[in-house]
Amino acid sequence: MAMTLYELVGSDAARPFSPHCWKARLALKHKGLDFQTVTAGFTEIPGLEGGFSKIVPILKDGETLVADSFAIAEYLEATYPDRPSLFGGEGGRALSRFVESWSQRTIHPQIARLVVLDIHAGLGERDQSYFRESREKAFGTTLEAFVADREARVEPLLKSIEPLRAILARQAFLGGESPLFADYIVFGAFQWARVTSPLPILPAGDEVAAWFERCLALHDGEGGKVPAAA
Amino acid sequence: MAMTLYELVGSDAARPFSPHCWKARLALKHKGLDFQTVTAGFTEIPGLEGGFSKIVPILKDGETLVADSFAIAEYLEATYPDRPSLFGGEGGRALSRFVESWSQRTIHPQIARLVVLDIHAGLGERDQSYFRESREKAFGTTLEAFVADREARVEPLLKSIEPLRAILARQAFLGGESPLFADYIVFGAFQWARVTSPLPILPAGDEVAAWFERCLALHDGEGGKVPAAA
Repeated sequence: MAMTLYELVGSDAARPFSPHCWKARLALKHKGLDFQTVTAGFTEIPGLEGGFSKIVPILKDGETLVADSFAIAEYLEATYPDRPSLFGGEGGRALSRFVESWSQRTIHPQIARLVVLDIHAGLGERDQSYFRESREKAFGTTLEAFVADREARVEPLLKSIEPLRAILARQAFLGGESPLFADYIVFGAFQWARVTSPLPILPAGDEVAAWFERCLALHDGEGGKVPAAA
Repeated sequence: MAMTLYELVGSDAARPFSPHCWKARLALKHKGLDFQTVTAGFTEIPGLEGGFSKIVPILKDGETLVADSFAIAEYLEATYPDRPSLFGGEGGRALSRFVESWSQRTIHPQIARLVVLDIHAGLGERDQSYFRESREKAFGTTLEAFVADREARVEPLLKSIEPLRAILARQAFLGGESPLFADYIVFGAFQWARVTSPLPILPAGDEVAAWFERCLALHDGEGGKVPAAA
């Protein structure tokens, strides 16, 4: 039986946008595993699989349920060791945690300040109320104020990813000549922006933009199949 | 024949301080290899091994010469594969490059703004002239101006290493339960500060401080054998 990946969507079920769900989706593709996807809005997540997790992605493999993208990658690596490796060894697994930590604390908060109002606009009605209330409480301001002057925030974001740019100038992927889960971790962040918002972020000619295009093309263009937000 | 590691020192040959030389020294210890060290001041480097390299560390292993700390780690990993691994596999090697890129672009420039005047004070006379001239040209200002208000620069440094702190709150080392070369990469940066400057940087109770202490204790306390600057 094919596995099931539960993914987050807004009003358009064909546009999964969660960065973490994209990490899991590409991890499954990397392993060459068959899977079907089931979509859920924010307010539907607590009802999935009998309330198994408050977050997606959730992977169901036979009787096994796993939530959290990194945990899913570790599960796939341990369960399907003969498929292409997501970590390239134990050292790669440990250091992927650093890439995750860096991406979550460097890229994610900055992208949130660019796209959060666009995310809201793409949600169904019930999810919109939930999203606005929970995020405005977390941010301490309105969604509109949170993204005000967002154009001015692009340049600092591009500056902050210089450590990424420098390595991608010398190797095709974070994983070296071919991608590893670490690539999907960072890809998820930019794909989140690409699918939710028309705001241009990565300029043409940027090494990071070139790497992102390479990632969009991986696994028969899995990432690129969902068109960019217009 | 034991290997030779060429290291940078100031007027006190017992206090190697280059972050990159510390990376190489701990890599050799990690592999459990015998080596002797030969010290050089900045202006002596071009004369080492017939002008082999403009930078230290340089490793001499029999007839083989290798310069650059990462290249040395890769050389040791390839040449002594039966010794404890510095990368934990190919994925770890690739992602160690990201750790290096991050450390060089996040930690190093900030530590430089804390300690360059202390470094200058610790150099021999000829190296002092070279160091002041080359660094003032690179920084576009005097060493004194470059470190002015340095106390106010500690807090932003501590904030910028949050991605490191978050991972060290969940695992003992970047490498996981035990250290890898990635740990030595970041250790080198803080050891550079510790050996050159009495300025307190990592506060007690910080997860990064606790990790740094663990690193100082590794390999029979290799890093801790050189006392902190007073």
